[in-house]
Amino acid sequence: MQGRLLSFVGVFSLHVDEHFMRYALAVASLGGAQTSPNPRVGAVVVRDGEIVGQGAHLKPGDPHAEIYALRMAGEKAQGATIYVTLEPCNHHGRTPPCSEAILASGIKRVVVAVLDTDPRTAGGGVARLRDHGIDVTVGVLEDEARALNRAFFHRLQSGRPLVVYKAALTLSGHVAANTGHSQYVTGPLARADVQRLRMEHPGIAVGIGTVLADDPRLTVRNSDTEQAGDWQPLRVIFDSGLRLPASARMLAEPGQTVIVTTPSALADERRVQEIEAAGQVVWLPVAGDKGRTSLTAALPKLAALGLNSILLEGGPTLAAAFLQDRLIDDVCFYVAPKLLLNGLPPFLGAVTQSMAEAIALHHVAVRQVGDDLCITGRVKYAP
Amino acid sequence: MQGRLLSFVGVFSLHVDEHFMRYALAVASLGGAQTSPNPRVGAVVVRDGEIVGQGAHLKPGDPHAEIYALRMAGEKAQGATIYVTLEPCNHHGRTPPCSEAILASGIKRVVVAVLDTDPRTAGGGVARLRDHGIDVTVGVLEDEARALNRAFFHRLQSGRPLVVYKAALTLSGHVAANTGHSQYVTGPLARADVQRLRMEHPGIAVGIGTVLADDPRLTVRNSDTEQAGDWQPLRVIFDSGLRLPASARMLAEPGQTVIVTTPSALADERRVQEIEAAGQVVWLPVAGDKGRTSLTAALPKLAALGLNSILLEGGPTLAAAFLQDRLIDDVCFYVAPKLLLNGLPPFLGAVTQSMAEAIALHHVAVRQVGDDLCITGRVKYAP
Repeated sequence: MQGRLLSFVGVFSLHVDEHFMRYALAVASLGGAQTSPNPRVGAVVVRDGEIVGQGAHLKPGDPHAEIYALRMAGEKAQGATIYVTLEPCNHHGRTPPCSEAILASGIKRVVVAVLDTDPRTAGGGVARLRDHGIDVTVGVLEDEARALNRAFFHRLQSGRPLVVYKAALTLSGHVAANTGHSQYVTGPLARADVQRLRMEHPGIAVGIGTVLADDPRLTVRNSDTEQAGDWQPLRVIFDSGLRLPASARMLAEPGQTVIVTTPSALADERRVQEIEAAGQVVWLPVAGDKGRTSLTAALPKLAALGLNSILLEGGPTLAAAFLQDRLIDDVCFYVAPKLLLNGLPPFLGAVTQSMAEAIALHHVAVRQVGDDLCITGRVKYAP
Repeated sequence: MQGRLLSFVGVFSLHVDEHFMRYALAVASLGGAQTSPNPRVGAVVVRDGEIVGQGAHLKPGDPHAEIYALRMAGEKAQGATIYVTLEPCNHHGRTPPCSEAILASGIKRVVVAVLDTDPRTAGGGVARLRDHGIDVTVGVLEDEARALNRAFFHRLQSGRPLVVYKAALTLSGHVAANTGHSQYVTGPLARADVQRLRMEHPGIAVGIGTVLADDPRLTVRNSDTEQAGDWQPLRVIFDSGLRLPASARMLAEPGQTVIVTTPSALADERRVQEIEAAGQVVWLPVAGDKGRTSLTAALPKLAALGLNSILLEGGPTLAAAFLQDRLIDDVCFYVAPKLLLNGLPPFLGAVTQSMAEAIALHHVAVRQVGDDLCITGRVKYAP
């Protein structure tokens, strides 16, 4: 009873800075994956308690969030406060530095959620503003802002895209029947949720085994019409032996397909031409042991292609190879309330000797999606 | 906001009959499995809005709940109301009929949660009370009362114990490493929860493979001291080839071990004597195809031993055989937030061809137990 009352009263508590920063975070998040390799950023200009401008960074090459928000505010930016979810940049990139634009606008106070870790800014934006007498507050809803750009920060720090392994499995732990048949494990709401998830990631990856078994389109589609949208994540196929058929459906879909393969496989010019004739292809030659591309070597190259994150969609052999190489950062498992007598597991790697070999997850969260559960977690590799 | 307010107001709504029936249900449930093969029953006597007596049925042969409650009420039963979670019995069993005791007590009104389906009562108790002018209400918290005795009603209807398959698995769907090593999948709170679960079932079953791999004690123990209690569920071992070693730890534990085996295996008198010398054993010879006991034939015999329900604790081969024969009624899966590259699944049955072979669960519920999840559901076999 007391708990209820307390939480009820809590509704009326208000932190003005958090209120406006939450608006900026919401605007920042709406664009999904399309800002990659840039971060998602939102900005809100507030004068006399009223929102007079707001903006978001939409895609690389476009103006930053602060610029849109200041343009909307116009003259009203004089003496106003700007809330930005990430430290304003301080470098000339494809656009001029936002710190300059803020100084020119007449803004009096800047509230920043989290500092940038891009070495070209990294505190320099805030320092410059303060040097010019602007009142700067840093750290409002910092955790939320860090979470929003977790993939961006991860890529900056590790040089690799954040890898999220998504699988749909039965409660008996099977992603498919023994034959590989898997349509469908989960219900329509979970499958629609996967479409939404795909819009959060600039790349989707699968192994060639999955391509040969399912011939997936790997597109973001409206779940009712099955119509693919114009924006598509980059499709990434791990195909050491270059077995991808030119007839693969994904090649005919909107968007590009990155083929990670061995340099020796690329020597087959006929195959290369055949595939290039079928669709928009980006070749990513990566050498490795035993005729297989090295995943550890492939990931920095995918980061260099502009991918802050990759949604890894299987199959079990590729997923096990990623896990073995400590490259899976998150898992997102849709668990369907059904049982199979036998089938394929989500990881099919080397034989294990002991339960102590299990790799722990943290930040585990569960939500219900239709009749299915969605269980997410971050992988915590032993040091 | 409105939702909050409405639920807050809901706290003040009160149904007097439900209030007292909830008390009776709580008392009924506390005894756990020890009433089997009898149902769990609770009774509360209320006069002038005050509880003047309460009782529960504790074990077969002991007085029924109504008798204890009426004894406690004594003279105060005159003109009072009795709340009973199950229809009062109307037959002379090991104790005289409760309907008679109620009539003799001066009780004026009887509130019953659910009718008995035991053919010896089955509406007869209520009819007799009404014939004698008692005001009888039936159906207060009926769903809850039915759920409390789901195993009892299931046995009456099907002739088999309710079978609950309990497994502890990683989120990657593995109950053990490939070697069979499984200690431990889940954390201490989940393991303590299993001890509690064992107290809810009069029998625990495993296959001989699990005995040979893990040498489990299959006892209810205090999770801190590891000390086995005096009451123990019946241990049931499915062991067609009678491979149980006389040194198996469970044979030395308090309680009895039922060994389900083939009649031909029982012909080995030396083995039988060796095992009987090691512990308290009940032999259950069950024939079947290919030298294996028939599970379908074994379950009615286990019901006849007084088991309303069985907690099936593995291994994967036995669980798959139960599922194949449509004998698993519920699953209770403790899912640990960890990943294995490979391992043993919770079911290891015949190879599957299609995801359409999956068997659906309904009444799915999820709760967090420490760092683990407990996912329960009822199996819904296709007609």
